[in-house]
Amino acid sequence: MKRSYICELSEMIGKDVLLKGWIYKIKSFGKLAFVSLRDKSGVVQLVMEDEEVLKDIRLETAIEIEGQIIENEKAPKGIEVQVQNLKVVGETYYDLLPFSINQKKVNASLETQLDHRSISLRRPKTRSVFKIQGEVVEAFKNYLKGEGFSEIHTPKIVASGTEGGSELFTVDYFESRAFLAQSPQFYKQMMVGAGFESVFEIGHAYRAELHNTWRHLNEYVSLDVEMGFIEDENDLMNLEEGFMKYLFNHLNETCKAELKMHNIELPKIKEIPRIPLNEVQNILLEKYDKKSPVGNIDAEGEILFSQYVKEKYDSDFVFITKYPASKRPMYTMPDESLEGMTKSFDLIYKGLEITTGGQRIHDYEMLKNNIIKFGGKPEDYAFYLDTFMYGMPPHGGFAIGLERITMKILDLENIRESTLFPRDLNRVTP
Amino acid sequence: MKRSYICELSEMIGKDVLLKGWIYKIKSFGKLAFVSLRDKSGVVQLVMEDEEVLKDIRLETAIEIEGQIIENEKAPKGIEVQVQNLKVVGETYYDLLPFSINQKKVNASLETQLDHRSISLRRPKTRSVFKIQGEVVEAFKNYLKGEGFSEIHTPKIVASGTEGGSELFTVDYFESRAFLAQSPQFYKQMMVGAGFESVFEIGHAYRAELHNTWRHLNEYVSLDVEMGFIEDENDLMNLEEGFMKYLFNHLNETCKAELKMHNIELPKIKEIPRIPLNEVQNILLEKYDKKSPVGNIDAEGEILFSQYVKEKYDSDFVFITKYPASKRPMYTMPDESLEGMTKSFDLIYKGLEITTGGQRIHDYEMLKNNIIKFGGKPEDYAFYLDTFMYGMPPHGGFAIGLERITMKILDLENIRESTLFPRDLNRVTP
Repeated sequence: MKRSYICELSEMIGKDVLLKGWIYKIKSFGKLAFVSLRDKSGVVQLVMEDEEVLKDIRLETAIEIEGQIIENEKAPKGIEVQVQNLKVVGETYYDLLPFSINQKKVNASLETQLDHRSISLRRPKTRSVFKIQGEVVEAFKNYLKGEGFSEIHTPKIVASGTEGGSELFTVDYFESRAFLAQSPQFYKQMMVGAGFESVFEIGHAYRAELHNTWRHLNEYVSLDVEMGFIEDENDLMNLEEGFMKYLFNHLNETCKAELKMHNIELPKIKEIPRIPLNEVQNILLEKYDKKSPVGNIDAEGEILFSQYVKEKYDSDFVFITKYPASKRPMYTMPDESLEGMTKSFDLIYKGLEITTGGQRIHDYEMLKNNIIKFGGKPEDYAFYLDTFMYGMPPHGGFAIGLERITMKILDLENIRESTLFPRDLNRVTP
Repeated sequence: MKRSYICELSEMIGKDVLLKGWIYKIKSFGKLAFVSLRDKSGVVQLVMEDEEVLKDIRLETAIEIEGQIIENEKAPKGIEVQVQNLKVVGETYYDLLPFSINQKKVNASLETQLDHRSISLRRPKTRSVFKIQGEVVEAFKNYLKGEGFSEIHTPKIVASGTEGGSELFTVDYFESRAFLAQSPQFYKQMMVGAGFESVFEIGHAYRAELHNTWRHLNEYVSLDVEMGFIEDENDLMNLEEGFMKYLFNHLNETCKAELKMHNIELPKIKEIPRIPLNEVQNILLEKYDKKSPVGNIDAEGEILFSQYVKEKYDSDFVFITKYPASKRPMYTMPDESLEGMTKSFDLIYKGLEITTGGQRIHDYEMLKNNIIKFGGKPEDYAFYLDTFMYGMPPHGGFAIGLERITMKILDLENIRESTLFPRDLNRVTP
């Protein structure tokens, strides 16, 4: 018999089915036993008349059953399975589960759950985060392919960092020393110049940050975009705004059940406001008596300003634009209209920065001079600068942290909840 | 005016267009100049009546032009563009290109081309390899999603290797030492157990191999699959055979022009023969007087046996099955029907191994004992073994090297040709 999935059963009343999955709950009433069977698609109630079968079976045993689908309005979702045959295919070897996963709440700290990640993920709500994350990736890919972008895979073992050395992980590379890439920044720019014109990458990025916070990871998945032949940074914000609209529609279509589990409603995204940093700082000062650091706003500022935007524009998103050159990387394009400022932006979503982007310098001499101005040596960037000698078009891009956007979409409290196997200062296992 | 792409122009005869791209070739005849413009989608001939415009313009300058599409049967593809306006958007700063990219052959070694990767990729044939590679990834993703698989992203910074220590790159991880993952093997298995049931990952894998060959990279993209609730390894070979058929159809549909550039015709894949290793070794000995190493065949054996299969079965592919336990990793499922052998397989394509796969051990005690048998300590694998205590279903999987399969599809001579930025013993830049 061909295997059926639990999500398909409501269409199969009266039929005999083969199901596979894990024992999620057991309720025994004398001769009759009710067992919840869980597969990747859902949970269904099994009815077993011979309680003997369950004698040595524990929760989370992997089983296959054959049985008939019966309507029963008292059962969850109105159906249950009358079991004829049960076969254990994956034994258990525990005395006690590390924590229970079949209750409303998990009786364990996040750290304990992460220690036993493959158990915690068996809980449908915990695993649903990654269904949504998977659809974020799918939407990103579909949207950009639709816009003519090419997917690339660039190296993560690199000879030098893109943004300074203190946050780099070092790799022993044969007789020498290499680093883990902080971002595919240089490579995606080079691939624009190499004739792909517009590229995206879904890949790991590494930051050796020396602090553990709820919103930082040392290894994360970066959704990177770089677009050639642009007019200015507005082309990039238009692209990202288009993506966000596409994403929310896509999630509303593909993740109904999962969004509901988390009590999340995703609104239709309207135009995302674009507000220059100096205006943002003024508003924070005037409205909230909140002072900002030079050339930026801090975490509290992000939250306050998001409240302001929500009230004034009814938007969960806001682009903050025109950051000063001194606060942006050396490859950022200056904005001639505003002394000292750049054609750059951040995207803030529900009080948290989820994107940094901007137009890049494409002129070889200008880039070389900027490297020097920032205290660097052009010869250290030779492999990158090389591309700019041979006709580099105007270009720019942005990057979205996958775990971060997933966390914010679902209002999770800690970025580790939207990471299968987080890596931080204290954790390199499982 | 909205930008048009060169591939669209044959439908736009008589119209005014805005084009963007690079100057690929220049031919000057007195007052008239013919310029080949290249964008990501193709090459078209521009006609300029005022040769003055070209005075300071070199090959590979990035430009925008406005002009009218004219039919001209003498022009390549029967059309050319009468240029009205030309704007330089990306200047050049070279005296001499490192090598010419607009001739039939490139007058530079592969190493030189890789040194200037973003120049070499401007050559349409060189870049076309990555269009095909992109569609391999697309097909892999589409096919597996269609089969109900979930995409996962697992860590590349890990605490221990999957297959022994000599080939591991070491990372300085804060106060301690970690490694770069040789494969997502343990993690994909754990995610099967975590309730995803069937997963795939497209991600980097790292091997610190101490030799440079035409078929090895130290960093490569691994297309990984793991499938739960299987009957045996035949389910996996069925899945991979289905993928290969899907892939070739997909490439024939999406990459016609690119396959033609490389003179490649992809046949319709029929059933892929599955032949046990000991039979393969016997055939090699009897037919070709070729001795094989114990429990394997060598590179020459792969080539000879592929010839045999091509002649006998008219197939470019062959599964070699039932490798001995001593030659497979400790997690490989023994084959009870054949003493000392395992439920494992390799897929050989045109004389080169492109896949290793097999059913894995899912029973906790059996796996623990096998770890000990292979000289390991179960406590070193605690984070992995943990999953197997809580009902692990029968499962297995395989992995395909993305650069390898691309290389073989296109009959390239060196795996570096199908890698944007290869990493090897001597190369960590660009």
